[in-house]
Parts: sequence; C-alpha cells; structure tokens
Amino acid sequence: MPASRFDVLGLGNAIVDVISTADDDFLAAEGLNKGGMTLIDEARAEVLYKAMGPATIVSGGSAANTVIGAASLGCTAAFIGKLKADDAGASYIHDIRAAKVDFSTPCAKDGPASGRCLVLVTPDGQRTMNTFLGACQNLSEADVDEDLVKQSAIVYLEGYMWDPPAAKAALAKAAKIAQAAGRQVALTLSDSFCVDRYRDEFLGLIRSGMVQIVFANESELHSLYQTADFDTAVAQLRSENILGAVTRSEQGSVMVTKDGVLAVPAFPVETVVDTTGAGDLFAAGFLAGLTKSKDLETCARIGALAAAEIIQHIGARPLANLRQLAAQNGLAL
Amino acid sequence: MPASRFDVLGLGNAIVDVISTADDDFLAAEGLNKGGMTLIDEARAEVLYKAMGPATIVSGGSAANTVIGAASLGCTAAFIGKLKADDAGASYIHDIRAAKVDFSTPCAKDGPASGRCLVLVTPDGQRTMNTFLGACQNLSEADVDEDLVKQSAIVYLEGYMWDPPAAKAALAKAAKIAQAAGRQVALTLSDSFCVDRYRDEFLGLIRSGMVQIVFANESELHSLYQTADFDTAVAQLRSENILGAVTRSEQGSVMVTKDGVLAVPAFPVETVVDTTGAGDLFAAGFLAGLTKSKDLETCARIGALAAAEIIQHIGARPLANLRQLAAQNGLAL
Repeated sequence: MPASRFDVLGLGNAIVDVISTADDDFLAAEGLNKGGMTLIDEARAEVLYKAMGPATIVSGGSAANTVIGAASLGCTAAFIGKLKADDAGASYIHDIRAAKVDFSTPCAKDGPASGRCLVLVTPDGQRTMNTFLGACQNLSEADVDEDLVKQSAIVYLEGYMWDPPAAKAALAKAAKIAQAAGRQVALTLSDSFCVDRYRDEFLGLIRSGMVQIVFANESELHSLYQTADFDTAVAQLRSENILGAVTRSEQGSVMVTKDGVLAVPAFPVETVVDTTGAGDLFAAGFLAGLTKSKDLETCARIGALAAAEIIQHIGARPLANLRQLAAQNGLAL
Repeated sequence: MPASRFDVLGLGNAIVDVISTADDDFLAAEGLNKGGMTLIDEARAEVLYKAMGPATIVSGGSAANTVIGAASLGCTAAFIGKLKADDAGASYIHDIRAAKVDFSTPCAKDGPASGRCLVLVTPDGQRTMNTFLGACQNLSEADVDEDLVKQSAIVYLEGYMWDPPAAKAALAKAAKIAQAAGRQVALTLSDSFCVDRYRDEFLGLIRSGMVQIVFANESELHSLYQTADFDTAVAQLRSENILGAVTRSEQGSVMVTKDGVLAVPAFPVETVVDTTGAGDLFAAGFLAGLTKSKDLETCARIGALAAAEIIQHIGARPLANLRQLAAQNGLAL
C-alpha cells in the first residue's frame, strides 16, 4: 500500500455551533429532546434562536471536530463537507484551515445557508442540539475527491450524514474508494435516534466488511442492537469481528474486539462545562493513537484526555494544543 | 428627581469579539501591542484574521459588556451603539436583547460592516485587542434618545468612543442631557493609549463636574496623570473630588474619594483563561452595587466577583447568572 498523505480524512456535516446556556424549564417549554440531536428547518431555527440566550459561536460538526482534534494531536488531517459561500461559511473555512486541516470542498453559490446547530447547555453540562442542515444537505458524490480518499490512512464517516440522501451517496462513494485502496474505514454512530433511522444500513456496512472501526456511546450501542443491557450489546458488537470503541461518559470507555473487551477509565475532570464534542474528541484521540501505532489502551487514554479537555469549556473544538497536553500526561505521540 | 426607568445606560462601541489563542511569538511576528487595544482598518483586519487560529465569536464591546453584566446582576439596563444591518449585527442584537438589555439604536443600512475586534489570548490569559471599528464610527447625536438618557440613573460612557468624532459628539450630548437631568455620569478610561490620545478631554470632563465616577486600571491612571508612581496617581485622583474605582488585576481594586482610599482584594481565581472584559465586569458589579445603595466596599467586592467569573472562560460576557453567583458569595443584591 502506498504511504498515505493524510492520517485521517473526515466526511461530515460542516456546521456552525451557536451555543447558549439554558435551564431544564427552557428545554421543556420549547419541547426539546434533552441530550439528543434533532433536525429542524430554517423557520424553526429562527424561532428557537430568538428564544435562546446570548450565544457563543464556534465552528463544529461531529467529524470535523474529530479531524481537528486529530490535527491538534499531530496527525495530518483532511475534511470534506459542504458550506454555502456566506459569512458563516467563510468563518468555518477560516477555522478549519487555521486548525491545519486540509479543506477544499467547493462552497455552494446558491441554495440554503451554511448549516448551524443551536446548542443548549444545561447546568449539568449536557448539550441538547437542534440542527438546521442547510447547505450540508447538498454534499454530493462530485465533492468526494478520489485521490484524497486514496491518500488517507483512515476515512472517518459521520453517521448523521445518512440523513441527507445526496450526502449519504457521497459517503458511500468514499467508503468504496477507501475499501478498494485498502484503507481503513471508521464510522461514528452519531446519535441513538440516528441509529434508529439507519440501523439496518449501519449494520450492513459493518457486516459487509466496509467498516472496520465503529465509535458509539452507550445509548447508540443499545439502539444498534435494540437492547437495554450493556453487556448484551457489547457481546453482539464483539461478534461483529471489527474494532469497536464505546464511550460511557464518566465511566470511561470500552474497547471491543473479537479477542476481548478492555475497559479504560475516563480522565478526571473538575468541572464539566459543556459536553458538546466529547465523543468527537474521544474519536480524535483514539484515531490519533491508532495512526501512531499505539496499543488500544493507549489509544483510549488519549481519547479520554482529548474528551476531558473539550468538556471543560464551551464549544467542541480544542482550546489547548492537544499534543502538548498528551505529552504532559505521559501520552507522547 | 423622577424615578429612573433604567439603572444603567451604556454608550459604547458595538463590537463582535473574534477570539483566538496565540503565543507571544505570534504577537511579535505580527507586531501586536500585547495587552493593549489597537485600532486597525478592514484590510489589516482581514490579513490578521487569516493569520489567526480557529476563533470563538462572542458579542463584546466594553460598555456593552458592562451593561450586560449589570443586567445579569439584576439591574435594569439599556445600551446605545451602532451596528450595520449585516449578519454580525443581527447576532449582536440577538445577544444583547437576550441578555435583557434594552437596545434600539437603528442599524446603518450602508457604509462599513459591523465592528469587530480580533482578540489574541496568550497562555498567560492576557488579551491583545485589534479593533476594526466599522459601523461604530457612525454613531451620531441622532442616535442618542433624550428620554432614554433622562430615564437612566447612571449613564456610563466608554472612553474608546473618543476615537470616532461623530461618536464622541453623541457621548457629549448624552452627558449634557444626563447632567441637566441630575443623573450620574460615569466614564471608563478604556486603555492607556486611549488616555494618551484624549487626556485633556478626559480631565476636562472630570474637572468640569460632567463626570462623577471614573473607572481606570493602573496603567490608565498612570497615563491620566503622567506618572509611573501609583500613590502619586491616586493622590491626584483623590484631589478631583469624584468617585474613582481603580482596578489592579490580582491585587484587587482601590476606591478613591475625597474622604480617603479603600483597598478591596480580588476574588481568588483558580485558572485565568482570558482576561477580556475583566475591567468591564468589575464596572458592572460596582455600578450594580451603587444602584442598589450598597457601601463602596460591597460595590467593589461585587465588581471583583463579576470580574473573576469573566476571566475563567473565553469571552467578555458572563456565562453564569451573576446575581445568583453574588448571592452564593454573600453578596445578595
């Protein structure tokens, strides 16, 4: 296999996060699905934005957060995602390039505005996401550069992308190119309701050998196997004969392979401010470890450290240099 | 004097903060004035933005931060400042109204874009600000609603506003209306270089009796009286026969009146993340205390607490409910 130009290529929604604090009463009054991600249209986004408190605006998007985290850990990284040529799109491109991630997906000149996610953070640090996909819906197969995919050691797919049909086709194209080129394909299940919507397709990807690495949190894993019992779900995942990385918030993570199950603790955190991006950054650390040929426990510890950094401040993009932080914690990459 | 509709009315630049971390080498390479505020034009703003890291976008502006802090402490508050009718302007208006501050200055339909400040935060938590004033320059006397000024117990003027001539005229108008209506006028000196530019005008406002309360940090006070000695500067301030509130970072603050000098300690802070807005929030707490008829020491302690909240996260707008925070710290308002 030729040497790869990029350690990680992410494909996902290019979304600007608009983050505000809120209390549980606000979530109830607005009928929001606490802890989950709900798709909303532009009209609803405007109404909800008007009702929200003062906002902090930070570039986001699940797979984009992951590749930026990986870049902060010293990986070479690239991203494919769709924006519109508007102010939000320009900010987004600034941020992803400033994070040293290769990005060259052409912006849409017309159609819906750049996507945004209205995030409500409750005093317990939980985030409730309301996403207007906007331009993200129009990511298409034409946006998937074959050479870029072939040159990437790991191709990371965002489960949320199964919602817009054109974007799903684009990801399928990327997965096929990666498979033909002998590259690894990773999939994040994104959200338990997303798994509900695309369970058969996700299982199909896993069982056809298209996907070799799966990231899930507990509720996504439960949804995938339609069980309320964690051990049952883990046993099922183990039987898939892939590498599974399951995150469990403050209970740490569980690495699952056909050979066994390895539990790795979370990094202690003083105050949880905003859990937005915790899973994305765990994946970043884990993938960074994998690309540097670390053992699974070390990969999970780097993931836990990156997740710990992200939940101690607003926004899902790291504020610290994660590679330095890892080195300071005995996890030099 | 008739009862006031608002406790505090602020007049200042309506600026969106675009905040990124940077190291001292970056500041040196870009020739930036560490810890200060430098005015830049739009072309320079674009070049500097391109060179900056990924950014967090939060509404800012010195006097606006102060009135929002006062509102979070339970004051009734209003703001006058100039935006353009663009995306940044719309976000700004959302944020200030969501913070329960009355705002109705009409947006400019053409001319320069809404103002923005490129803030570089170094690992020591210090902020270096580079401001493109944009639409702020076009605040004019017509934007100063006479009734609004008359109905406000304290009118708070931002020293930075002396830079754009039309805005300075608008603030002079507000000060005159307030004086005629028997309202208190407060002035923040904003920045030592700003004091260098307008020393005589600031002293004129103080000595003519137009301004009754002055906020300054150490370097601004030294600049005002052109001395490197703190005690000399304080003695001069004392002789002005006004109320002076001088902030000294981790050394706390000093309240200065003709009757004496009172030192009040800072609130202990575990980790300083970003000092942007520390002075603005001190003023917020101090003014909130004054409007609730607290003694000077209590006013300064509320100011210190609000400043402590703001320097523990990115951005100059409070993330906590400051009134609750004050009550939890024995400073119920």
